[in-house]
Order: sequence, then C-alpha cells, then structure tokens
Amino acid sequence: MALIVQKYGGTSVGSVERIQAVAQKIKTFADGGDQLVVSVSAMSGETNRMTALAQEIQTVPSLREMDMLLTTGEQVTISLLSMALQQLGCDAISYLGSQVRIVTDSEHGKARIKSIDDHRIHASLDAGKVVVVAGFQGIDEQGHITTLGRGGSDTTAVALAAALKADECQIYTDVDGVYTTDPRIEPNARKMKSVSYEEMLEMASLGSKVLQIRSVEFASKYKVPLRVLSSLIDNPVGTLITSEENIVEQAVISGIAHNKDEAKLSLIGVPDKPGIAFKILKAISSANIEVDMIVQSVSAREGLTNFAFTVHRNDFAKALSILETVCEELGAIGVQSDDKVVKVSLVGLGMRSHAGIASQMFEVLHHEGINIQMISTSEIKISVVIDEKYLELAVRSLHSAFEMDKE
Amino acid sequence: MALIVQKYGGTSVGSVERIQAVAQKIKTFADGGDQLVVSVSAMSGETNRMTALAQEIQTVPSLREMDMLLTTGEQVTISLLSMALQQLGCDAISYLGSQVRIVTDSEHGKARIKSIDDHRIHASLDAGKVVVVAGFQGIDEQGHITTLGRGGSDTTAVALAAALKADECQIYTDVDGVYTTDPRIEPNARKMKSVSYEEMLEMASLGSKVLQIRSVEFASKYKVPLRVLSSLIDNPVGTLITSEENIVEQAVISGIAHNKDEAKLSLIGVPDKPGIAFKILKAISSANIEVDMIVQSVSAREGLTNFAFTVHRNDFAKALSILETVCEELGAIGVQSDDKVVKVSLVGLGMRSHAGIASQMFEVLHHEGINIQMISTSEIKISVVIDEKYLELAVRSLHSAFEMDKE
Repeated sequence: MALIVQKYGGTSVGSVERIQAVAQKIKTFADGGDQLVVSVSAMSGETNRMTALAQEIQTVPSLREMDMLLTTGEQVTISLLSMALQQLGCDAISYLGSQVRIVTDSEHGKARIKSIDDHRIHASLDAGKVVVVAGFQGIDEQGHITTLGRGGSDTTAVALAAALKADECQIYTDVDGVYTTDPRIEPNARKMKSVSYEEMLEMASLGSKVLQIRSVEFASKYKVPLRVLSSLIDNPVGTLITSEENIVEQAVISGIAHNKDEAKLSLIGVPDKPGIAFKILKAISSANIEVDMIVQSVSAREGLTNFAFTVHRNDFAKALSILETVCEELGAIGVQSDDKVVKVSLVGLGMRSHAGIASQMFEVLHHEGINIQMISTSEIKISVVIDEKYLELAVRSLHSAFEMDKE
Repeated sequence: MALIVQKYGGTSVGSVERIQAVAQKIKTFADGGDQLVVSVSAMSGETNRMTALAQEIQTVPSLREMDMLLTTGEQVTISLLSMALQQLGCDAISYLGSQVRIVTDSEHGKARIKSIDDHRIHASLDAGKVVVVAGFQGIDEQGHITTLGRGGSDTTAVALAAALKADECQIYTDVDGVYTTDPRIEPNARKMKSVSYEEMLEMASLGSKVLQIRSVEFASKYKVPLRVLSSLIDNPVGTLITSEENIVEQAVISGIAHNKDEAKLSLIGVPDKPGIAFKILKAISSANIEVDMIVQSVSAREGLTNFAFTVHRNDFAKALSILETVCEELGAIGVQSDDKVVKVSLVGLGMRSHAGIASQMFEVLHHEGINIQMISTSEIKISVVIDEKYLELAVRSLHSAFEMDKE
C-alpha cells in the first residue's frame, strides 16, 4: 500500500465531465489499495473570469482581496470532485488550505509555504477516505488567506507529499512527460524515463513549461519523487524527477531547452569604471523589468567596455528607452538592440565530468552557419543567444549531434 | 458614533454595478462617522448555478460538500465589495465566517450559530476599516465549513450585531419595510414604523417573506434593534423591529398575513382512540411533509372524530395518497381534501388585552359571505383557512374593518 499525492490542473477539471473522469482515475488507484491525497486547481477559465471582475471594480486590485477572491476557484473544484468520488462509491472529503493548515508567509499573491499540519489528512486517510485538498492556497499566521502564485497547485502537491512523506507525487497534466526537447520542433525528441531535480530546475528556468520552478525546488529540497504524467491517457508512465543517485543511466546531455521570447540590448563603448553594471541594471530593474542573460565584454577601443543583456520581448521597448537614457548619462558610444533573438540551452549533469561539451556545441552551430551572439554557462548548462530564424535548425542539429534520440 | 451592522442580499450585490452602488451607500455611513460591519449574500444566481453543478455530479449531494461549494458565493462577494470600498477611498477588509469564528453546530445545510469571536472585528473597526463579513456561513468546532440555511445571511447579520452589541442591525432588501399586509392585495396597506419581535415572528411564520424566522428569533433573544429597509432608495427609514416596550403606539392588530400555498386534508369518522393524531401525523412526517395547521373536532356520529390538517400545496398529492392508506388502516369513513384553500391570519400583541378580536374577525368574514373552513389561534394571532377565491376580499375587508390603514 503506497501513499500517493496526485495533482490535477485546471484543464483536467475544466468541466463536470472531466471532473467525473478524474474521479474515475482516482478510484482506480483507491481500489488498488493506495492511499490518495489529491490536490486540484480551479476549473479552467474561472481564474480569468474572477480576475476580470476584480479589474472592473478596482484599478489596482488589493492583493489580499484578490487572494480572498481567487481561492474560491479551488474550493469549488474540491467540493465537486469529492461529490464525484462519493457518487462512484469512493469515500472522499475535501479540505481547504486553511483546514489542513498550509501555513505560508504573508506575501499575498506569491506566498511561500512554511508548514503543513499532516494530522488531519492522516486521520482522514486512516478512515479510508480519499483526501481532496485545494491547491494554490494557504493561510498566514494571522489567519489571512494567501495564494502561492503561478503554478501554485503543483507546489501544494509537492509540499503535501513532503509533509506526508508520500511515496510519490504525481503531477497530471496535458503532456505525457518530460522530453529531451520540444517535440513540436524536433520530432525525434525522446520522452525521458527519469531526470534529476537539478536538470529539471535548469530546464524550467530556461523556458520548459512542464513544471513550475518552485515545485521542483520544493521536491528537490525534500527529496520528493515527482512524476509528470498525462491525465488524458490510461496507465501513463510519464517521467520521474528524482535525485541524481537514483538515475541509473545518466546521459551527458539530458535536454535542450529554448526560449523564444528573448530580446537583446547592448550598450557599446561604455567608459570602463567600477559600478557600470550596477548603474545599468538598477535603471532596468527599477522599471520592474527582469533581466535574463548578462554579458560584459572588452571593447575594441581601450578603456571602453561593452555591456549586453537579454529581457523578455514584452519588455523590449521599455528597456530600450531606459537604456538610451543610461547611454547618455554614462557617456557611452551607443545602444544596439535586437528583438529577433532566441535562447537555446543544453542541460546535463554529465557536463560536470565531460569536458568539451561547450566546444562541441559551438562546432555544431558553426557547421550549420549559425552565429552565436551571446554565451552564458553554468555548471550543468550552456546557453547561447542566436537569431530567431535559426531556432529549429539549432535545436535539431544539437539533438542529433548529441545523439539525444537514443537512450 | 454608532456601530451599525448592515446586510445586503443577493439582488443588491447581483452585479459589479450594484456592488459599486452598495459600496457608495456604505461609504456615506462611514463618512458620517459610523463604524460599519457589513454582511453580504452571494451574487444572485450564483447559488442556483452551483447547486445545478452539484446535482449534475451527485444524485443526492453530500451536505458537507454542498456547504464547501456554496460558501464560495459569499466569499466572492466580500472580496469584490471590499475592493469597491477601497476604490472609493474607504478602507475595508473582508472576513470569512471561519476567520471571525462564527462557530456553529455541525448540522450542514442548516447549522445554528453558537458563538462569534468579536475581537478580530473590533480590532479592524478600531483601525478605521469597514469590516465585510461573508453571510450564511460558519465553521463547526472540528473546523468543517457549515451554512445556516435559507435566509442565513440575515441571521449572520443579527448574530454579528448581537456579538458586537451594535446600535442597530439594518437589513437592506428590495422592499422598503414591513407593511400591515401585502400591498399587492391591499393598496391601502401601510408601512409600519415599528413592530415587535413577537409580531414579526408570527408574520414570518405565517408567510410574510420579509425576514426569515431565525433571524427574528435571534434578534428577539438578544434584543438587537433590527431595521428592514430598501437598498433601492436613498435615505430609507424602513421598519424597526424591536421589543414591545419600545413601541409607543401599540395597535391592536399589527398585520394581516396570508399564505396562498395551502392544501387541506381531512380524515372523516376516525374511531376516537388515543394515539390517532400520532398515527396520522407520523405517516405524513415520515414522508418529509411539513404539517401546518391541525384541527381535531368531534364527529356527528358518536365515538368518531374528524381530523384535519393543512400542508404546502406541493406536497398535496403525496399527502393525499398517504392519508388514503392511513384511512384504511384506522378504519375511518373517508378522506376529504381541497387544494384550493388559503390561510389568512391576523397578528397583533393587542389581542392579549383586547377581547373579542376573533369574533369581530369572524363577523367581518361572515358579512362578506366567506365560509371559514379551519381556525387556529395563538396568544397573538388568529388564522383561518378559506376558499382561495376569497383571499383578496378577506384581506381587504379585514384591513378596512380593523382600520389598519390609519396609524
């Protein structure tokens, strides 16, 4: 008998019929003898509907009241799912975040979980019930309702699994696992049986949409075996995200991530004095723009330096205008920009022990005539910024060169 | 500076525009220096929408899960109303029943309030905030979400007013007060300035739809001055429901209530033995049918008795079929029935000191040629069952005979 935490997203519970299908799936596990704790999101569309209502009323909706409003979404789902389970003869009970004391800090809209009281859940499990917990929500120490921010239901599931010492945390979604790269770009992309927390974290931060970073961080911290699987097919296997030591066959490169929404900005010929990076980035971050890659390089003219960074394409115009002001203030030669770039990244724990991965990557790109505009590396990833027209070519040629279609 | 508890029903908060109008009304009080606690219902239509969802899923929806589902309705309203108040520059904070510890018993769907923790509300009031509390909901001692049943938001408001020792509890609704009788039947019906708790209780139980019985009971028990007023007009006066001793000019008859949905059933010629009433009513109540008036009378034939009662017209067919079975079992002569009857009642504290009200009532009806089929009396009311075709005539002639159009 295993204790399994499952999470179903908004699309999986988006209608009465889908809630009934999820209940059927859960019942199969319960009938097999497993103990089940299920965390669910709001029915798809509900969060947008409520956000629109709030925006009609308050110019900048209060974060506390938004949390009060949005948490009703999951509350509806847990009650309906519990009813659907009961209708199938499967005893079930729903709990709000506040009822199982998912205590968070007080950062409304992006709270972080501090603790969970597992007693109530264990008591209900011991009474033979499936426990259905509202995802995305918690309560702070003063009793105010909080939410965990984007992808919060994944985080709820992982936190529940950690608190309950569950055997596995299963995230049901509309993809059937984690692939070596985006199958829409490279048809030979291979679904991985397993991948390490560290690699998954890099892939999530590099634009892979499968899991939110925070849920992977949480799983990594508490060593929760995390499985991503499809809610649309029967008996899915999915991909297990686990500790490095549990992965038998560690590939050198696990995945290729890409991010289409990049824009590059460069300040050319800045007088090279201490504090330049600070001055440039301060101005950008004051405008609430997140900076991704940062590269500083020597200029052709002595005493000058070039400073380049990337931002999300939505922030491009704003960042450009700020940078032009900074350019004047710092007496730099000029600004260069390009909002038609993408980022392609190789991720793999194997890089730590295999030298020469970077040069092999650069060789492949060079061979295809792809110019590299920026490079950034960490211990287990190499990212390059290239012209967006080469995205598919770069992904496919790297996937093939590193033989990622083979196990 | 007064402490006022206000309640706005589902129609008053049925859209973004109406929520904004309610916020404007509340702001006027707050600007005038009053401390405000506001209890609200779900936006009109929401409860029905959710009930329909539940019924699609579970044949007989779990009462606990229904409470979990339905309480989201008020939660949406309190957050939106708080936002609307903040948008007007009026500081406001929303609280769930669980957050201000509206502790109830565990009867899901019709829980009764046991206690309220006023500390949190007083702290927020002292901080200069308008406090917006979800109506209709509470939490039991084990932390399960409960609801108070029909009209529960009125009860929440009155219970809050009692706990906070508020100066007044104002129930905003779509009528502008309590009338001597239904103005749609008698155009001369007069809005009362004040009425006693006892009279209001009788009128509520006799079919007046203005307030739910339980909220009046609560107000009576804790001596909460309760005012019914219109949310649709400016500066409404409404009707104050208060203790008998606070009512300066006590009329003999305060109001005429009526109930259109009655049906009458009689068992004729039952052998008169102990336990007859029990046997008949047991069968009826086992079928979940509520019995209203009950009259037992002597039959023309010795040793036999006649037993008559009224039920809601919706239950007529079911009650009739049960009674026919009972008739055979008890060896009675037969069953008579009529589902075209109505109940008309006179209510007034003055009946206690004024003799002859009943005979005056019967005389008026007799004078109009209206046959009385059943009579039931209490200390402060007289009810008669008559043919439904006489309803309007009975109400108007009694209203006029007792000079109820005059103050």
